Amino acid sequence: MSLQYMKKRRSIRKYTGQDISDTLLNELLETAARASNTGNMQLYSVVITRSQVNKEKMAPAHFNQPMVTTAPVMLTCCADVNRFVKWAEQRNAQPGFDNFQTFIAAMIDAIIFAQAFCTAAEEKGLGICYLGTATYNADKIIEVLSLPKLVVPVTTITVGWPADTPEQPERLPMEAIIHHETYTDYTPDDINTLYKAKEELSINKQYVKENNKETLAQVFTDIRYTRKNNEYFSEKYLKTLKDQGFVF
Amino acid sequence: MSLQYMKKRRSIRKYTGQDISDTLLNELLETAARASNTGNMQLYSVVITRSQVNKEKMAPAHFNQPMVTTAPVMLTCCADVNRFVKWAEQRNAQPGFDNFQTFIAAMIDAIIFAQAFCTAAEEKGLGICYLGTATYNADKIIEVLSLPKLVVPVTTITVGWPADTPEQPERLPMEAIIHHETYTDYTPDDINTLYKAKEELSINKQYVKENNKETLAQVFTDIRYTRKNNEYFSEKYLKTLKDQGFVF
Repeated sequence: MSLQYMKKRRSIRKYTGQDISDTLLNELLETAARASNTGNMQLYSVVITRSQVNKEKMAPAHFNQPMVTTAPVMLTCCADVNRFVKWAEQRNAQPGFDNFQTFIAAMIDAIIFAQAFCTAAEEKGLGICYLGTATYNADKIIEVLSLPKLVVPVTTITVGWPADTPEQPERLPMEAIIHHETYTDYTPDDINTLYKAKEELSINKQYVKENNKETLAQVFTDIRYTRKNNEYFSEKYLKTLKDQGFVF
Repeated sequence: MSLQYMKKRRSIRKYTGQDISDTLLNELLETAARASNTGNMQLYSVVITRSQVNKEKMAPAHFNQPMVTTAPVMLTCCADVNRFVKWAEQRNAQPGFDNFQTFIAAMIDAIIFAQAFCTAAEEKGLGICYLGTATYNADKIIEVLSLPKLVVPVTTITVGWPADTPEQPERLPMEAIIHHETYTDYTPDDINTLYKAKEELSINKQYVKENNKETLAQVFTDIRYTRKNNEYFSEKYLKTLKDQGFVF
C-alpha cells in the first residue's frame, strides 16, 4: 500500500493555502525521529518556519524559490553537534566532536530524519520539496535562524497540501544506479544506452532548445550547475563549517 | 497505517537465514529511486553485496560487525559523480563537479535513497541496520568494490528478515530536536531536563557501570566516539575524498 505512494510520488512545488495542523505536523516529526541515527546521539535539529515574516527573510537564501513563501511549513534540517557537546561538558565528559567525521555523521542523521519526514508526510497526502540551496547560503540561514556554533543547515524542506499533480519526472534505468558485487564502470556505449530515454523526452529536448544548447548535459554544466558556481559555493560552505566551529 | 510501522520501527541486527528474492529487492530499489535527488542528476550509486566471499572481504572495513556476514543483502550507498561526468564529457559539456559542494549534493542524494529504501524495506517486513563505518574505512571499501574516481561510499545498510524484536530504543523528547522560528539554545537546566529520562533508563545506567564510567556522556566521549578516533577517521575520509578526485 505505502509502496504505491512511494512509487508514484513526485516533488510538489505548488501548495493550496491550507495550513498544516500542529497535531499532524507533530505526528510526522515524532514518526521521523524514529528513523536511524548515529549511535542514538541524534546529532541533528530541525527549525520550523511558519511565520510569513521569517519565510520572507529566508527567501533570498533560497534564491527566492516561490515554495519558501507559499508553503505553510518549512523545515530547516541541521547537523547539530551543539546539543550533544553541551550535554557532555555538563557531565564531566570531554567531547572531541568538532571535526569532519562528526559533521558527516550529523549530516547523515539530519538527512535520514528529513527523508523519513518526507515519506511520512506524503503518506498523509502532503507534498514536499527539498531545497538544495540550504548548503549554498548556509551562512545567511544561520543568521536568520540564530544557529549557534556546531550547528549547520544541511537541507531545507517545504511542505504543504498539493495544489497540482505534476507529471512524475523520469529516472535513469535501474541498471544505471545499481551495481552487483563490484562497481562496473560505464563504457561510452553504456552511457549512450542509459541516458537515451532521458535525452529523448520531449520536455528535456525543449529544455535544451530553450536554453540554446546542443545537449541536455550542457544545460546542467553551463547553466544550472556551473563550475564557477559549484566552486564558489564549495568555498562558502567550507568557510561556514569552519566558522561554525568544525576544524579540518 | 504505514506511519504505525514507521513509529514502531527499530534497527535490526539479527537476521534469519532466509534470503531476499531479487523480485522483492528490485521492487524496493525502484521504489527508493523515486525519492528526491539533486536536480534529477541522481548523483549516487548502490553496490549490492550478496556473495558470502565479498561480505567477508567487507567485514574488516566494518570492524567485523556481525550484520555484515549474516545479512542476506548489504547495500553500499555511494556519492557518485562519475556517471554524470562521463555522460557530460561524452556530450560536449564541461562538468565542474569535482568539488566539495557537488560531493555534498551527491552524499545527500545517496542518503535520501538509502532512507527511502529502508522505509520501503521495513514496510515489507524486513529489518535494516545502517553501518556508519562506511565513512570510517571508505578507502578499504573502495578497494573491495572497485569504485572509480568520483565515487565514495557514504553509508552501508544491512537488510534481512528479523530474527528478533529488540526493544525500541529511547529518543530524546521532541523539544530537544525541534525549534520554532529560531534556534533556542539550551541552558544547563534544559540539558538536565532533556537528557533526564535517557540517563535514568536502566539499560543506560548499566552501560555506564559496565564501562566503569561516571556518566553516560563519558561512555560516548571516552569509549565509543573518542576525539582521537574522530580526528583519525576525519583525516582518513578527507584523504579518501581527495584521492577519489574531489578537490578542496
